[in-house]
Amino acid sequence: MALSPYKQLEQEWKRLHAFRGAMSLLRWDAAVMMPRGSADVRGEQLAALETEYHGLLTTPKVSRLLDRAQASAPSLEDWEIANLREMRRQRDHAIATPVALIARLVKATAQAEVRWMEARQQGKFEVFAPHLEEVLHLVRDKAALLGQALNMPPYDALADAFSPGISTTEIEALLKAYARRLPTLVTSAIEAQEARPILPIAGKFTPSRQRALITEVLKAMGFPFDRGRLDESSHAFTEGVPGDIRITTRFDQADPFVGLLGALHEAGHAMYDLGLPKAWLDQPVGQDRGMALEESQSLLLEMVIGRSRPFVRYLRPLLARHFGVSGPEWEEDNLCRLLTRVRRSPVRVDADELTYPLHVMLRFELEKKLLSGELAVRHLPEAWNAAMESRLGVRPANDVEGVLQDIHWALGSFAYFPSYAVGAAIAAQLAEGLRADVPTLDEQVAAGDFSGLFGWLRKNVHGYGAKLTAQELIKQATGRPIGAQAALRYLESKYLADAPASSAAA
Amino acid sequence: MALSPYKQLEQEWKRLHAFRGAMSLLRWDAAVMMPRGSADVRGEQLAALETEYHGLLTTPKVSRLLDRAQASAPSLEDWEIANLREMRRQRDHAIATPVALIARLVKATAQAEVRWMEARQQGKFEVFAPHLEEVLHLVRDKAALLGQALNMPPYDALADAFSPGISTTEIEALLKAYARRLPTLVTSAIEAQEARPILPIAGKFTPSRQRALITEVLKAMGFPFDRGRLDESSHAFTEGVPGDIRITTRFDQADPFVGLLGALHEAGHAMYDLGLPKAWLDQPVGQDRGMALEESQSLLLEMVIGRSRPFVRYLRPLLARHFGVSGPEWEEDNLCRLLTRVRRSPVRVDADELTYPLHVMLRFELEKKLLSGELAVRHLPEAWNAAMESRLGVRPANDVEGVLQDIHWALGSFAYFPSYAVGAAIAAQLAEGLRADVPTLDEQVAAGDFSGLFGWLRKNVHGYGAKLTAQELIKQATGRPIGAQAALRYLESKYLADAPASSAAA
Repeated sequence: MALSPYKQLEQEWKRLHAFRGAMSLLRWDAAVMMPRGSADVRGEQLAALETEYHGLLTTPKVSRLLDRAQASAPSLEDWEIANLREMRRQRDHAIATPVALIARLVKATAQAEVRWMEARQQGKFEVFAPHLEEVLHLVRDKAALLGQALNMPPYDALADAFSPGISTTEIEALLKAYARRLPTLVTSAIEAQEARPILPIAGKFTPSRQRALITEVLKAMGFPFDRGRLDESSHAFTEGVPGDIRITTRFDQADPFVGLLGALHEAGHAMYDLGLPKAWLDQPVGQDRGMALEESQSLLLEMVIGRSRPFVRYLRPLLARHFGVSGPEWEEDNLCRLLTRVRRSPVRVDADELTYPLHVMLRFELEKKLLSGELAVRHLPEAWNAAMESRLGVRPANDVEGVLQDIHWALGSFAYFPSYAVGAAIAAQLAEGLRADVPTLDEQVAAGDFSGLFGWLRKNVHGYGAKLTAQELIKQATGRPIGAQAALRYLESKYLADAPASSAAA
Repeated sequence: MALSPYKQLEQEWKRLHAFRGAMSLLRWDAAVMMPRGSADVRGEQLAALETEYHGLLTTPKVSRLLDRAQASAPSLEDWEIANLREMRRQRDHAIATPVALIARLVKATAQAEVRWMEARQQGKFEVFAPHLEEVLHLVRDKAALLGQALNMPPYDALADAFSPGISTTEIEALLKAYARRLPTLVTSAIEAQEARPILPIAGKFTPSRQRALITEVLKAMGFPFDRGRLDESSHAFTEGVPGDIRITTRFDQADPFVGLLGALHEAGHAMYDLGLPKAWLDQPVGQDRGMALEESQSLLLEMVIGRSRPFVRYLRPLLARHFGVSGPEWEEDNLCRLLTRVRRSPVRVDADELTYPLHVMLRFELEKKLLSGELAVRHLPEAWNAAMESRLGVRPANDVEGVLQDIHWALGSFAYFPSYAVGAAIAAQLAEGLRADVPTLDEQVAAGDFSGLFGWLRKNVHGYGAKLTAQELIKQATGRPIGAQAALRYLESKYLADAPASSAAA
């Protein structure tokens, strides 16, 4: 008997899932294992697979099957209906962007990436500017086409590819709520921390010992080393698929927290992927609910849990055992202060929880203006520096720590930055819900027991995959739509509390 | 202007090349890096890419372009004509085997592999037998279809996929020439070596030191570590593409030669791939000339060079430096004897140069009978043991070291084994030509200079890619068609010479 149109679509997506897994492995290898001189070879392999993937997704056959399956929707289960919706969404995104435009973007971003690196080395924005203009031009075309196809404003259409179902209006409201409160909060937090100086830590933390410590922590969290890996790379990232999930981190031999917190961030992503509904792993509905949700999971583990007093309590004996460290700088209070230090840095990747959303706000405003044409690329550096001064009260010493600091725009990733700030807001919101349902969370974490944490996340977030929209999911899990209120409560309690013995979520 | 049909085909194959490279990386990762529990995930990824690859190769579009390009052949260069011929060959092979049959073979061999391992663990051929029967049944269908399409006898058609242009008649003549001379040669060699006992070597050879030694040797040979890797795996192999070539070896902590010679074997493959014509790297004509040629390159480096006196002379100071070893067992004569020890082992992978072709002969005869139906699977163990006794004078103690020792048939690889013996014959033939053209080869090798060796191979073998047939290539390089005479001369001189100070090729 022939398969139903819907079942045929499942077969198609099973194949697409295998392609995505293969591409992910090629990227992982490129960053972790590949010889330095092999980038051109790998680039061609990835381009070939991506072209084929795009081709498979946009065949007339898939479109026909989507229409026929839609007609049979009344006979489908709710997971199947959601799956069909996500299939359609993926197809709509893919078909809106012609292959020729994708090919031009691939070429332009590859060049722009190289020129971005050169511009950083030479400290000259002019080296990068014409290539950013070319990328911007193509992204503008893409945004217009996507917007038409999805019936959305262009910026929304780009954002929809990263975090579907969260509108620019909602992002803007959230960022504005942050922007209203954070500047004074930053000032107060810095004042508070000046009253309690931080003792610096020192020592030689070898990569092999850091790896052993991180492995022990990840095992306690349930990271499956028989179906996953932990490796070292210049930037921490997560690749792979559930069943073969691979995280990396970067070891700083002078500071064991860089590697550990980087690994926790990635473990947050990995645990999300591992908690996705098993029956739907190779289908769109079995995937994560976008980058804002992904970031909420990584920030929840890195920031909310990883920089909390209960986690420090769990960590201290491990630090002593793996590194043989002791002394007043390794006491609980000092480590808590160290992990919640606030600084006005012009560099986003060095930013703490309090200043991070301001970095995002700045980029969100500038990239909208770049896309609309309101801001010309040649005026970008001065606009950047002015915004940095007004938002963060700090002026970059040069373009390298200013407008040239991020690779995202060179790669054509516009409308991506908000995911970080929205993710942080969601993380705080989930932490409130989690704390309400798991009142012993602090004690569990301090004892190295993460079952309450991940059990709740699996039940309320991970296990839904992409069945609900991000808004539906968060509303169901926390009783509120996505907003900045919980985040602001969390930050105020964590960074302004006089008593150091605050709770895990604070 | 539209591309010519021929140029369009080049574009298609460029894509296929990228697919092959991606699949190769997935296999490399599976054997070297992949977590143990991820085999099912990887299997689906490889199956999806292979299906797609097969699909791309067999589209009506490719067939139409092949016909149109053929019509324009008079206007093509000779490399292009050869490329077109190889394209057609690949298409013919792919199109002769229906996707449904391939899918059944993939499934049957995956099961047979698991059952083969179980049968080995339990020492019971019966566990494996029904699965081998199923595989054999499907391979027989495939051979019949391939034979019809290629106008060849079934066994030839299977062999053509591995080593095109070498007929079963030629293989048979070569193996018979071996089989006539080798048994007495083995007896004489064993007698000769009993007169000169070998001092055993001992020590603890850590993987990191072995790796350092092998890296030094590979660097001397010109292996490009900026576009290639050396890793450890349970079986030595080569994967990747020129531009990102990856070899592995297996470290035996009690015997440094296992890892070194394994690496040399794979380096022979890698250097072949690296010497292929650069302008044609992503085209069929730029690929190697089949498995017999591949094996000739690996055996030339592992056996002819790696187990020669000049190489031992080069190696001794390296062994002393990397492992701190000294004493009579590390003297030149003893190491030469150690590396040319002859033993009647029932196990192919333990076999030396002299007995190896007899192992191949046995398999060649049995697999032809299995395919023709002359031999039933249930009678295979007794046929195996009888053949082993008559060919090698040794009876396997059980099926694990008998009929269950090789994985090849479980994987559906029938007609593959001859490549090993034909490769060994070609290696000896090439060594004669090489020695005639590079008279100082011994001195070069003893001095760690491999430029004469690889310069000659690039000029006479590697640089032709698949432009000529294997027979044309060898005839051009050595003045003779492929045969066993040079190999027998080489083996006689190396294993019967009384004077230990024989030449590099001997």
